[in-house]
Amino acid sequence: MDRLFDEELIELRRKLLHMAAHVEEAITLAVRSLKERKESLAHEVLSGEAITNAADIAIDELALRLLALRQPMASDLRFITSAMKIGSDLERIGDLAVNIAQRSLTLLQSPLLKPLLDIPEMSALAQRMVRDAIKAFIDRDEALARDVCKRDDIVDHYNDQIFRELLTYMLADPATISRAMDLILVSRNLERIADHATNIGEDVIYIVSGKNIKHHAEEKDKPAPNSGSGPA
Amino acid sequence: MDRLFDEELIELRRKLLHMAAHVEEAITLAVRSLKERKESLAHEVLSGEAITNAADIAIDELALRLLALRQPMASDLRFITSAMKIGSDLERIGDLAVNIAQRSLTLLQSPLLKPLLDIPEMSALAQRMVRDAIKAFIDRDEALARDVCKRDDIVDHYNDQIFRELLTYMLADPATISRAMDLILVSRNLERIADHATNIGEDVIYIVSGKNIKHHAEEKDKPAPNSGSGPA
Repeated sequence: MDRLFDEELIELRRKLLHMAAHVEEAITLAVRSLKERKESLAHEVLSGEAITNAADIAIDELALRLLALRQPMASDLRFITSAMKIGSDLERIGDLAVNIAQRSLTLLQSPLLKPLLDIPEMSALAQRMVRDAIKAFIDRDEALARDVCKRDDIVDHYNDQIFRELLTYMLADPATISRAMDLILVSRNLERIADHATNIGEDVIYIVSGKNIKHHAEEKDKPAPNSGSGPA
Repeated sequence: MDRLFDEELIELRRKLLHMAAHVEEAITLAVRSLKERKESLAHEVLSGEAITNAADIAIDELALRLLALRQPMASDLRFITSAMKIGSDLERIGDLAVNIAQRSLTLLQSPLLKPLLDIPEMSALAQRMVRDAIKAFIDRDEALARDVCKRDDIVDHYNDQIFRELLTYMLADPATISRAMDLILVSRNLERIADHATNIGEDVIYIVSGKNIKHHAEEKDKPAPNSGSGPA
């Protein structure tokens, strides 16, 4: 039975990694559809959403079965319940990728406002945070988890910068407002993806060290002293 | 032992209700500080954050203890693991209330841009969604949970309307940009609070009916056909 339990834990890990790879790919495709102006890539994201939802449910069900039948103790218990929370985070990341794909479809109906440089960079960072957060969870790597949490500030900085730049477009020419706003919302969706990766990182730190980094959220979430007007 | 287990489940419910009441109060205080221009109320929110964090941890620990020691089956198991997820949602709602309080402190340094009408109404709606989502969970009330999920659209509509109104201020007078943006971000924090309440509602529907409403997230998250430029 112990051996079967080990196999089931491996299966749970595998499912999480698989789901993470799927949502990462969704982020890539959504941003590529925007950058390369390809509707088909956005549609791929939309049709892939069912897979993310099914993966979240499958993780929950496997985790519940393990909890019910295996009576896991201490660290296994924490691993399994965290896997359920992380499944929810990944599912929401998938939703955010869908939102980006939908914005992309709207944006593709108008000429490009400006060449996209920051958004693809920001997207690469956010994706990497998702990947590393899951890696940190699987490997119980507290240092990597802390690193993921730190990177959240860089993504916030991109979000701020993108916002400010697009605001200048809007102010200079009201005809750009609609497109600029859609790009701002793409950027905000990426920021929220990074937030979910950070949540996963915080969970990992809690699991590994027993320290709850959320206690320090006051610091992390505080806007920079001179960014009163920047997006939160 | 069964009786003790029942008492522990009641304790878990009590902790969740208590935490929910605390974050609801934080939302009220944060928005009141903005409307009544009282810094002290915003500071109350900031100093109350530690309570939310401690409550989340306490819920996780009690839930883990119940899972480890009581080997709960079926519906109790689902209740306990959902309580952990809901604790995380409430903790994030608390963070969003803190963000609003911080924005309020920034906004109180400048004269009022306009009398606040929509934001307090939107806040009351979002708070009510949080309360009802928890009530639906405690009472296993699927109809109430579905009602909470539906109300998300009304909150999104407020967010959209607030955004559009403030955009007209920004375009008319660039001197208002900073304050208008802070108000837009307050509105967006309220929208995200409603999203978390909706997540809780979706969990409740899943627990009670076994139906996963997330399957239909495609519909729910789709922007209205003619709102391409509105905030998502």
